[in-house]
Amino acid sequence: MSLMGQMMHMPLMISSLLTHAARHNGDVEIVSKRVEGDMHRTNWAGIEQRSRKLAQALERLGLKTGDRVGTLAWNGYRHLETYYGVSGSGMVCHTINPRLFPQQVAWIVNDAEDKAIFVDLNIFPLVDKLAPMMPSVKHVVVMCGREHMPKESSIPNLLCYEELVEAEDGNYQWPTFDENTAASICYTSGTTGNPKGAVYSHRSTVLHAYASAMPDAMSVSSQDTVLPVVPMFHVNAWGLPYASAMIGCRLVFPGHHLDGASLYNLFEQEKVTFSAGVPTIWLGLINHAKQNNLKFSTFKRTVIGGSACPPAMIKTLQDDFGVEVIHAWGMTELSPLGTLSRLKAKHADLPKDQKEAILAKQGKGIYGIDMRIVDGDGKVLPWDGKAAGDLEVRGHWVISSYFKMDKSPLHDGWFPTGDVATIDPDGYMQITDRSKDVIKSGGEWISSIDLENVAMAHPAVHEAAAIAAFHPKWDERPLLVVVKKPGAEVTAAELIAFYDGKIPKWQTPDDVVFVDEIPHTATGKIYKLKLRETFKDHKLPTA
Amino acid sequence: MSLMGQMMHMPLMISSLLTHAARHNGDVEIVSKRVEGDMHRTNWAGIEQRSRKLAQALERLGLKTGDRVGTLAWNGYRHLETYYGVSGSGMVCHTINPRLFPQQVAWIVNDAEDKAIFVDLNIFPLVDKLAPMMPSVKHVVVMCGREHMPKESSIPNLLCYEELVEAEDGNYQWPTFDENTAASICYTSGTTGNPKGAVYSHRSTVLHAYASAMPDAMSVSSQDTVLPVVPMFHVNAWGLPYASAMIGCRLVFPGHHLDGASLYNLFEQEKVTFSAGVPTIWLGLINHAKQNNLKFSTFKRTVIGGSACPPAMIKTLQDDFGVEVIHAWGMTELSPLGTLSRLKAKHADLPKDQKEAILAKQGKGIYGIDMRIVDGDGKVLPWDGKAAGDLEVRGHWVISSYFKMDKSPLHDGWFPTGDVATIDPDGYMQITDRSKDVIKSGGEWISSIDLENVAMAHPAVHEAAAIAAFHPKWDERPLLVVVKKPGAEVTAAELIAFYDGKIPKWQTPDDVVFVDEIPHTATGKIYKLKLRETFKDHKLPTA
Ligand SMILES: Nc1ncnc2c1ncn2[C@@H]1O[C@H](COP(=O)(O)OP(=O)(O)OP(=O)(O)O)[C@@H](O)[C@H]1O
Ligand SMILES: Nc1ncnc2c1ncn2[C@@H]1O[C@H](COP(=O)(O)OP(=O)(O)OP(=O)(O)O)[C@@H](O)[C@H]1O
Ligand SMILES: [Mg+2]
Ligand SMILES: [Mg+2]
Repeated sequence: MSLMGQMMHMPLMISSLLTHAARHNGDVEIVSKRVEGDMHRTNWAGIEQRSRKLAQALERLGLKTGDRVGTLAWNGYRHLETYYGVSGSGMVCHTINPRLFPQQVAWIVNDAEDKAIFVDLNIFPLVDKLAPMMPSVKHVVVMCGREHMPKESSIPNLLCYEELVEAEDGNYQWPTFDENTAASICYTSGTTGNPKGAVYSHRSTVLHAYASAMPDAMSVSSQDTVLPVVPMFHVNAWGLPYASAMIGCRLVFPGHHLDGASLYNLFEQEKVTFSAGVPTIWLGLINHAKQNNLKFSTFKRTVIGGSACPPAMIKTLQDDFGVEVIHAWGMTELSPLGTLSRLKAKHADLPKDQKEAILAKQGKGIYGIDMRIVDGDGKVLPWDGKAAGDLEVRGHWVISSYFKMDKSPLHDGWFPTGDVATIDPDGYMQITDRSKDVIKSGGEWISSIDLENVAMAHPAVHEAAAIAAFHPKWDERPLLVVVKKPGAEVTAAELIAFYDGKIPKWQTPDDVVFVDEIPHTATGKIYKLKLRETFKDHKLPTA
Repeated sequence: MSLMGQMMHMPLMISSLLTHAARHNGDVEIVSKRVEGDMHRTNWAGIEQRSRKLAQALERLGLKTGDRVGTLAWNGYRHLETYYGVSGSGMVCHTINPRLFPQQVAWIVNDAEDKAIFVDLNIFPLVDKLAPMMPSVKHVVVMCGREHMPKESSIPNLLCYEELVEAEDGNYQWPTFDENTAASICYTSGTTGNPKGAVYSHRSTVLHAYASAMPDAMSVSSQDTVLPVVPMFHVNAWGLPYASAMIGCRLVFPGHHLDGASLYNLFEQEKVTFSAGVPTIWLGLINHAKQNNLKFSTFKRTVIGGSACPPAMIKTLQDDFGVEVIHAWGMTELSPLGTLSRLKAKHADLPKDQKEAILAKQGKGIYGIDMRIVDGDGKVLPWDGKAAGDLEVRGHWVISSYFKMDKSPLHDGWFPTGDVATIDPDGYMQITDRSKDVIKSGGEWISSIDLENVAMAHPAVHEAAAIAAFHPKWDERPLLVVVKKPGAEVTAAELIAFYDGKIPKWQTPDDVVFVDEIPHTATGKIYKLKLRETFKDHKLPTA
């Protein structure tokens, strides 16, 4: 007969993150570069009070526990209030990527059956157009003050965020309920097919916040000023809005101003110390800084993930700018954090290049996440750094099923990620590819990430993508698609020669195509599906 | 109708801390200074394997889920294996303080109904003597190899730890069960009365581990070598055995070698970076280092709590030794961490003395713990740094009731700590006293901690205790009991004069008594109950 513990059982509630921040770090600033163009300053106490008012307003609109509330908004304080006001009151915050194709936005809103949509001023035209296609939506709230409200709209009863919030008295108690209640929904990026919905709970969100802030993970503390470049509609900005409340740090939101120059100025003006974002966004920032010979005065650490971060980028940020890169791997289905690359104590005395090789991997599983790799027959493979297999995970913040999809995605209790990876004896996981992107040359696998990493180390290359091109003998052979740096010159032959000695000879791309732009998905990933489509008739010189 | 999250529901299990450590940091060392006198080295993989064998051995002995297993042991790897082997298999690990009076030990074992006792070699004589008084105990396991087993004992079937463990094959799967199952029991220190049992769950233990390791709390990481001076029988060494597995850091256990010289040598030899312990233990270490003109070469940070840490001690460690002190407050009933004192970002530019004043407080509540102060009528008091009231807490790792005690200790859902405190607008809590130790002079309260802190700053004072002495007019007046530093001289009048300008005049002690030793409880706290008893007939010069 087991004995039960005699501890208080308090559910893990998202609202408690915010009330903790307000009580203990109420005067810590939340800075936002607004869509309106100006800077806005509030603090954790202000966010908490307005989130309570927002919760009151939602109830006044007739919204109920469990109802989905969509957001189409950039990173800013009102979006933060919406996160907490919606989830805190027992409703479900559904963040939507405004960069998706309009049809996809409508499809997602309909799939989630959003009852209300909160939308930023400069995204409003999209909603205005889509409104007739989204019958579940009863309320559209424009996130601005009365003075900025759209003058014309086909939507009846358009609501003004500021009016809605400021009409309430804030006399509201955050409710307590089952910690497994849904708190938010996020759809996958749609890189490999249609977006699928992940439904996070209060429990999974709070546990993820604890794990993500740990010294061996992001290591964020109340000493930091955090600027999430990763959008709040991309897996909840990787959980930073929750972790930031937990630790009570200063937050700086960039709004939609994500070009290199705007970001650089914001980092400097607001003394940002920590950031997070996908690789593409850093390309712009690094270029801007290099071209203008700029350095960062307070920015010290950044998490990069969502796609493989090229080692050359890690090296530039570290060596040229003194910014430590924490390479991370995650998925929408993982809330999103799975692994982060940090050195172990025993690595302290390794030579620089060996440290860099470790840090270029996707990293170690954080406590709360289990990983394994399996072969085609489901047999578990060893952690020897060589065997590559399908990566599977399980843990407190991993989905067990997709929203409205009956079929369980799990394999034997584990979630199959669709990524192919190796794990070394120290537990460092390295993604070789998505299984759909692997280049299969005569039965052997070539990692497109490896090919891209080499190309990205060439001084003339701005961005590179490796895809499979048809080959009559080998089925598939690698084709490299390259965007050159402005003003730089390099030939296909030179780039192919650049691979010499860096990877096994037979893996070298058969051809290089130069393009003006590589297509990206709405979350800033290389859109390989599209690239493969574009180059499906490409004739390799080797064919 | 609420919507439920669609996340994997995996219970928070203590065993998963250990399996995570073994998989990701299996080669990280666990070093122990053994009772046998030598040094022992294993690693997280070794601990995990032997804990599994121990779990098998416990089941082979016929022990069942929910059974209590007592330990009377110092900090060492076998004790660590017992923690995990017992809790991991669904039994309840009951750590017992061997420094308690023998009768208290027997009382606690009987109250917990321990079925087995694991005991260190040099504590065995105590168990040998008490065995007849502990009828529930069916098995006594001596934590050593066959060669060291006691030759004579009145206990039939005395078991040898190493034989027991090494007889098993380790072919054991850690079970998964309800996360609210009891994992361990710890009794309070018995400073103010009889010890009371706190029953921790797997859930509360894992959540406490997350919260305690955070950058704004202990900030321990896999980069650290952690030496827990605080015993594993004192609130599970403040959770360090769990947090250490979670982060996979190197651990150094001092066994029973806790004198200044032994500790200093161990810190240096094993390159310890982080430690934790009660104030008294640091007195010995600091004295040893000062007398021998020693510095620490790797030791950088320590948590001090369990009693108020005198500001003079924080200053010495910081200024003379470069060791950052994190002052912490906790209780057995809180697993134990409640607050830790760390500066906020906005404090960065304060002058040194103002920073010191903040760091001398007991600190900020960590996320997962709520605090409030109430007056005699239960009215909630403001966080203004002035109003002092009864401190009450609630949170994920706070008890809801004591073992086998029907009466709920809670007040309105909050746990009353028995401590009197102020909380300032920044959320820093400061303990003025235990409510039982407050000196009540003519209706006004005098904080004994304040009086002790002043005395401890005097260069001739080794240790000081302030207690209430009877006064015919004021009811109580402060009496200071002092142990001088070896060779130092100071008079009562000089000490009383030393208070000038440091506290309000009327709070100055009426008298000073010099003694050779101040009595301590089994956990190293000043034993005020005993002191008050000793000085109950003391005649104040002012009376
Ligand atoms: N550091 C990284 N290195 C390599 N790949 C990464 C990294 N971080 C994330 N990824 C890739 O991103 C994927 C998760 O992305 P996300 O959840 O945003 O949607 P998606 O997989 O791109 O879209 P969809 O699942 O709809 O096709 C991972 O499965 C992996 O392929
Ligand atoms: N940093 C600190 N400053 C002041 N007091 C502290 C500090 N840390 C702990 N304490 C005191 O220790 C108490 C908790 O100690 P513990 O749980 O070990 O048992 P105890 O209270 O000493 O014994 P018992 O409850 O049996 O009388 C707190 O209630 C507080 O009075
Ligand atoms: Mg995906
Ligand atoms: Mg107590």
